[in-house]
Amino acid sequence: MVVSTCKIRIRYAETDQMGYCYYGNYSAFLEMGRVEALRDLGIRYRDLEKSGIMLPVSTLEINYRIPLRYDEIITVETTIFDFPEGTRIKFDNKIFNEKGDLASTAKVVLVFASVKTGKPVSVPREISTILKPHF
Amino acid sequence: MVVSTCKIRIRYAETDQMGYCYYGNYSAFLEMGRVEALRDLGIRYRDLEKSGIMLPVSTLEINYRIPLRYDEIITVETTIFDFPEGTRIKFDNKIFNEKGDLASTAKVVLVFASVKTGKPVSVPREISTILKPHF
Amino acid sequence: MVVSTCKIRIRYAETDQMGYCYYGNYSAFLEMGRVEALRDLGIRYRDLEKSGIMLPVSTLEINYRIPLRYDEIITVETTIFDFPEGTRIKFDNKIFNEKGDLASTAKVVLVFASVKTGKPVSVPREISTILKPHF
Amino acid sequence: MVVSTCKIRIRYAETDQMGYCYYGNYSAFLEMGRVEALRDLGIRYRDLEKSGIMLPVSTLEINYRIPLRYDEIITVETTIFDFPEGTRIKFDNKIFNEKGDLASTAKVVLVFASVKTGKPVSVPREISTILKPHF
Repeated sequence: MVVSTCKIRIRYAETDQMGYCYYGNYSAFLEMGRVEALRDLGIRYRDLEKSGIMLPVSTLEINYRIPLRYDEIITVETTIFDFPEGTRIKFDNKIFNEKGDLASTAKVVLVFASVKTGKPVSVPREISTILKPHF
Repeated sequence: MVVSTCKIRIRYAETDQMGYCYYGNYSAFLEMGRVEALRDLGIRYRDLEKSGIMLPVSTLEINYRIPLRYDEIITVETTIFDFPEGTRIKFDNKIFNEKGDLASTAKVVLVFASVKTGKPVSVPREISTILKPHF
Repeated sequence: MVVSTCKIRIRYAETDQMGYCYYGNYSAFLEMGRVEALRDLGIRYRDLEKSGIMLPVSTLEINYRIPLRYDEIITVETTIFDFPEGTRIKFDNKIFNEKGDLASTAKVVLVFASVKTGKPVSVPREISTILKPHF
Repeated sequence: MVVSTCKIRIRYAETDQMGYCYYGNYSAFLEMGRVEALRDLGIRYRDLEKSGIMLPVSTLEINYRIPLRYDEIITVETTIFDFPEGTRIKFDNKIFNEKGDLASTAKVVLVFASVKTGKPVSVPREISTILKPHF
């Protein structure tokens, strides 16, 4: 299992006229959680992409429990529960608001794909080698 | 059942460096689909909000099948399959790319809530009266 | 001179907690105005980019006069006053709100650049040939 | 004079298909620079807004010199050169890329306005009292 956390301050740009963080902006927070989780493991997503492998999203599920507000510092917790098999990798997220309450949960499945062809590829060996000791 | 479609052109702002429409931007397309579905029924979301009722999102599920590309005109199909009960309303979406292929499916559940208190409220009578003949 | 207009409905995603359209979202409206102005001339920006020429922005100036609101249909007027010389092209914009009031003015200068090298290039002949009769 | 800096990592969400940070996203970076400059002075913008004063943008000017790239940590330098007079305050910005090169410059003028009426108001005394010793 891999667990990682990162902190993000809600921008004014991300609010909507309800006075909440717009629901569509959570996707970027989850992206940042994933990128930092990989960085903690020594994997820079930008290098992965330069090496010819990209990670488009296949499925996204978000549960909105407590609205996030402008200027709050949220904590995005990102967990990889399962060693990735085939062409996919799954991330589980919890978002905590500034008070520490669980504000949102999410699941995102991504596909390893070739930058050149756009087609799915197996989990790159460099990734599986780094992940293996954690499972 | 209520079915509605609207067309949206993918903006350059919505692309990412994979050359795809960024996965987080679909939420705005689904929002536009819902707003136009309600408008087709004679309900303007902006009036609903002025009357004191807002519709924050409770859960979001998106399946990404075929990437959307810059400048494509996509078709967002929005369906209300079930008459809303309690405090919630569910929308099902299909997104078709310019060629007419099913590029994405989604489900969004929203909660009727008071603008003043933020608390859930029953489906407003003006909404259920308009929806009833469709189910 | 080239003048073109396009209509855009303000999305909920584009509002902020002041209840206005967030100031950063105007850039996308201006982009859409430019793209439609070129399309009116028979130039598809997506084709231009495929042919190896891109148009990154060099300078942006926006004057905000009247706030834009959720669900308003705005009109973006895009004018090319000067035949592009050297490597640059300048667009002037007016944004009118739903009532027809001048809500914003803007000026954007873009640079023709090679997709491969990122370096500025002269106005492509296919563009100047199409533009010439208008000046 | 007041000078403040903050660091921001470019998100994947902020890239476009040129492989650059989309030009419209700079507005949010400038917003973050201003908010942190005020925070350094002991002014929380969220409190200002709760007290009934908001700060909509009046004019924006951005010069794009070097493209910003995914995953770069940029430095936003925010300077208030002039003590605000009347109803306006001006911020000057420099954005440095990860290498330390000056990638962009910007100027933003904002208006103090009443949340209730939307009308401009004089610089609030609490703000001018805090700013005075710096000029």
